[in-house]
Parts: sequence; structure tokens; C-alpha cells
Amino acid sequence: MAGEFDLIDRIRARIVARDDVVLGIGDDAALLQPPAGMQLVVAMDTLNAGIHFPHDTVPADIGWKALAVNLSDLAAMGATPAWCTLSLSLPEPDVAWVDAFLDGFDALARQHAVALVGGDTTRGPLSVCVTVFGFVSPDRALRRDGSRVGDDVWVSGTPGDAAAALAQWSSGRARDPALRARLDRPTPRVALGLRLSGFANAAIDISDGLLADLAHVCRASAVCAEIDIDALPVSDALRAAASEPDTRRTLQASGGDDYELCFTAPVSRRAAIAAAALDAGVSVSRIGRLVEGQGVVATAGGALWAPVRAGWDHFAG
Amino acid sequence: MAGEFDLIDRIRARIVARDDVVLGIGDDAALLQPPAGMQLVVAMDTLNAGIHFPHDTVPADIGWKALAVNLSDLAAMGATPAWCTLSLSLPEPDVAWVDAFLDGFDALARQHAVALVGGDTTRGPLSVCVTVFGFVSPDRALRRDGSRVGDDVWVSGTPGDAAAALAQWSSGRARDPALRARLDRPTPRVALGLRLSGFANAAIDISDGLLADLAHVCRASAVCAEIDIDALPVSDALRAAASEPDTRRTLQASGGDDYELCFTAPVSRRAAIAAAALDAGVSVSRIGRLVEGQGVVATAGGALWAPVRAGWDHFAG
Repeated sequence: MAGEFDLIDRIRARIVARDDVVLGIGDDAALLQPPAGMQLVVAMDTLNAGIHFPHDTVPADIGWKALAVNLSDLAAMGATPAWCTLSLSLPEPDVAWVDAFLDGFDALARQHAVALVGGDTTRGPLSVCVTVFGFVSPDRALRRDGSRVGDDVWVSGTPGDAAAALAQWSSGRARDPALRARLDRPTPRVALGLRLSGFANAAIDISDGLLADLAHVCRASAVCAEIDIDALPVSDALRAAASEPDTRRTLQASGGDDYELCFTAPVSRRAAIAAAALDAGVSVSRIGRLVEGQGVVATAGGALWAPVRAGWDHFAG
Repeated sequence: MAGEFDLIDRIRARIVARDDVVLGIGDDAALLQPPAGMQLVVAMDTLNAGIHFPHDTVPADIGWKALAVNLSDLAAMGATPAWCTLSLSLPEPDVAWVDAFLDGFDALARQHAVALVGGDTTRGPLSVCVTVFGFVSPDRALRRDGSRVGDDVWVSGTPGDAAAALAQWSSGRARDPALRARLDRPTPRVALGLRLSGFANAAIDISDGLLADLAHVCRASAVCAEIDIDALPVSDALRAAASEPDTRRTLQASGGDDYELCFTAPVSRRAAIAAAALDAGVSVSRIGRLVEGQGVVATAGGALWAPVRAGWDHFAG
């Protein structure tokens, strides 16, 4: 049976090296050197077993997703990721579990050159808490409160895939591997966020559902969004899994866990956004406009779409 | 029944204001302005119910302690605290519980002007994860690897009190309020750490037990510590609770959760350390010296003290 210090050694052996980490894991705290003139961007999210991921999720996917949901928050700010801390609560100090968890965590950390600099491992119900740190130039952060009337509303990728996978899981149906991959291994849109920084007016990541998250932007910016659910691109896997249009629309409009970006930008920036998306290797779709008013008004098939949920509530799940 | 956003509003209403928080709770991530020329100091610790605190601990004490154990890590680095993030997992969105939790958390945050800048609230077994951020001038951090042969070994406060409270709790005995306060409301030695920064050679906070934590310093610095357990000051409450000398010595030498500082400094610095402690309002005691070699050699009553435990292992508890 391994102990806490064995686990810490296993974690330490995997870490991405960065010159700005003065002192990493192994002291009371990490010592880090932020770049001069930049703002620090910090996000923290916890994944609890049975709440944020099914109990039968493989550890590598939990490791990937725990970092991905946090990097997605940095992406939504237009920030460059740099460091993270990890707190891992485990019922038992299972070395094989931790190694597999680290396989997923580390694969994503390396993609973004994120150094794990601290945290703890402890006993408790399975839970993963990650804090991520990135940088952004002053006045270039993609805040929620920067949207303007007249802006286009954009979405990256094909929203609804993760929610479809979750629905398949909840109902005990056979799980489509492509959808499951989108639920278990979401791609944080860091490259896109970086390229939008400075000319998109606002951004948010879609963790709670498109309508709910866009509503946050509208509230913060005091604008109203008019969007067309049918302007959302539909993945082949989603089309196969949800042939009934309203079911599919519900998954796309209100399903969480996609970690795509929803952002708004002036009409004059359409060509620049297309270029940014091409450069970042992700598709983007224009789904509506911002107008005077408040809230989100959604249409589908030419009719008003059902009322917007107030937001995904982790206590109502 | 409250939801996640009600809880976030309650949390937001309590926050300490700081000029260096560009954007706090309410966006995808916080935007922070680190001071020019300083290093960022980051620590993260989780408290799980039933593991790190008894299930019947009152919420205000949990809130205090969750921040205190993290500030203690900054203290052990000689850092000035600035910001924190909080991830709170709760079985139910109990507003009264959260308010009481915040009473304790906020009381300590205000003492140290720490602004809560982000995090999340979610459903799960009761667990509190905090990340703290502070600053230190380059080359002034109190690392574990800076000890030198010939250094004095010092300890702040009266170690053993928290362990005595925990022993009373475990055995179902009546709990001494003074000891219980030391377990539930530890005082992070931030003021002392700041004053030692730059002239103590190394420091660590005593979370796992004096011998175990001092052993970490010795390992990192490649030195051996010779200490006298009987040089540790004994609080009146501990003397009353543990009249048998070896019981008391065990609590003082190996009991965790005190969050006092153990530090080493050149003999030439004794007067400066006495002045720093007076200034910080905490007692300090010289308990030994560093010599060539490795490990910790402890004596008590003139005889060699029992072998040192390898370290408090959160999975062996």
C-alpha cells in the first residue's frame, strides 16, 4: 500500500518544466515568477465523483477533464496558461489509479506547457480540485461585461455532443464513442481564446449550457441576445444519437459540459474571426446578434424556443 | 432551498476589497495584478470532513481552519498573503451553514487582508479546498533547503496542544476549550514568517508533527537536527491534559495540526529572532542545533527519544 509521499513522488516525476517556476512541489508553497507587465488569470474548479463525472469514468479521463475544465476558463479569458495546482482526494492511495489519472492530466498539461507546481493528496471521497494560472496583457482579457449592442454572437465547435453522451449514460443506453470522447476529453479552446483576445468583446466557456452561459454574458454586459438554435452546427454523432429535432435542439441549447467558447464581436471583425478560427484549428459559427434589452431570445424552426433555464445549478442536478 | 448562484452571491457579499484585484468573482476567471519585482507564492490544501476535522466541527471553525492551514504555508515561506480561491463541496446548499462557514473564513481573511477572488461551490461530500497567493521578494523566501550546519533550531508557540485536543476528541473524553481552540482555530504565524524572512535560513510549518516536519527540512538541506523535546514550552492546558511526561512528549514531538513554525537560523541571529518574535506577538523557543549528518536526533529527559516517524501520512490516519 502506497502512502502520501509515494504518490507525491509519482506526481513530481511527471511535471512539465518551466523556467518561471522558481520552486515547485516539495516546499510549503510554490515560488513563481510572473512575467512583468502581465495580469495573472486564475480559475479553480472541482470535479466530484458521481456529480461531475460518472463513477465508471476511467482515471485518465478524469485527469484530463479536471485540467480541461480549468484551462477552458483561461481560454474564455483569452489567457496563456502557465501553472496549476492539484488537490486529489482518494478513498485509498491506489498507485495504479494515480498513474492512470496522471496519464490523462499530463497529456493535456504538456499540450499547453502547464507546470504542476503544488497541491496535496489526501484521503476522502474521490474528488479533484485544480487551480490554473495564466497571463493576459492588461485590457486584452475577454471579460463577460464587454459585449456591445450590434455584436455578432459566435460559438465554437458543435455544442450538444457532451450532453448527448451524458443522456446516453443516464439512460443506460449504448454510448457513442465519439460523443463520449467529447464528454470525457473536452478540448479547451485555448488557441482560439488567445487569438480572439483583443478583438472579441466578450467570451464565456459553455460549461452550463449555451443559453445559460450566454445569459451570463448578457446580464454582465446589459444587452439582449437574439439567437437561432438552428444556426448551431450539428455533429454527425449528435445527429445519429438525437434524430428528433427538438431533442437535439435541447441538447445543443441547454446541455452542459461542452467547453466550447461563446463569444461576441463587432460585425466588422467577421473576417478576422474566421481567420482566427482557421488558425486555431476549430470551426466557429455565427448564431445571432446582440440587441438592446436583456436576456436571451432563442428561435428554432422559425418559432420562439422554450424559455431559457436560469442556469445549470450544481445543486439541482 | 438555495441554489449555487444564491451561495455565490452570499460569498461575494463578504469579500475583502483590494486594489490589485482587477476582476474578482463573477467571470470565467479572476484577473489579478501582481506587484512588480515580486515572486508569487502559492499553496493549496484541502480539508475533508471526518479526515481533517471531526464531523461535529462547527462550520465557522471549518471556514477559519480551511484558510488558516493555507496561510500557514505562506507564513512558512515568509510571504505576504494577498488573494485566495475557495472550492466548497456541500451535500446540500444549506445557506445557514454557508453563512456560518463564511463567518469563520472571513474573520481570518480580514485579519490578513486576503481577498477571495474565485473558486466554485458544488455538490459533493463536505470538502473545502483553498488556494492562497502571496508575494515575497526574490531571495527572501524561507525555503526548506536553506538550513546550514551550526544553525539553531527554533519553534514558535506551544506545540502539542492541537494533538491533545484531537486525542481528547478521538477518545470521547471531555474536551478542554483552550486545546480545542488551538485545534479548530489555529493561528497562522504570518507575522512571524514575514519578520524572519531574509535572516532565518529555513522554515516549515508544523502540520504533520514537529519531528516529521523538521525531518523534511533536514532532508532538503542535507543536515542533521539534534533537538531536546523537553526544551519545548508546554501550555498550561496541555500540562493539565497530559500529566504523564512521555504522553506529553509524544503529543509535542509527533502531534500534527499545530501550525506553528519550525525554523533554523545562525547563532548570530538570536537577538534578532527574539526581537522579531516580540514584534510578531508570539513566543519562540530554541530547541536544538543542526550538525553534519542526516535525520533528526531527539532527546528527552537526557535519553534518546523514540525513533522518528517517517511523516504524518494522510492515508495511514
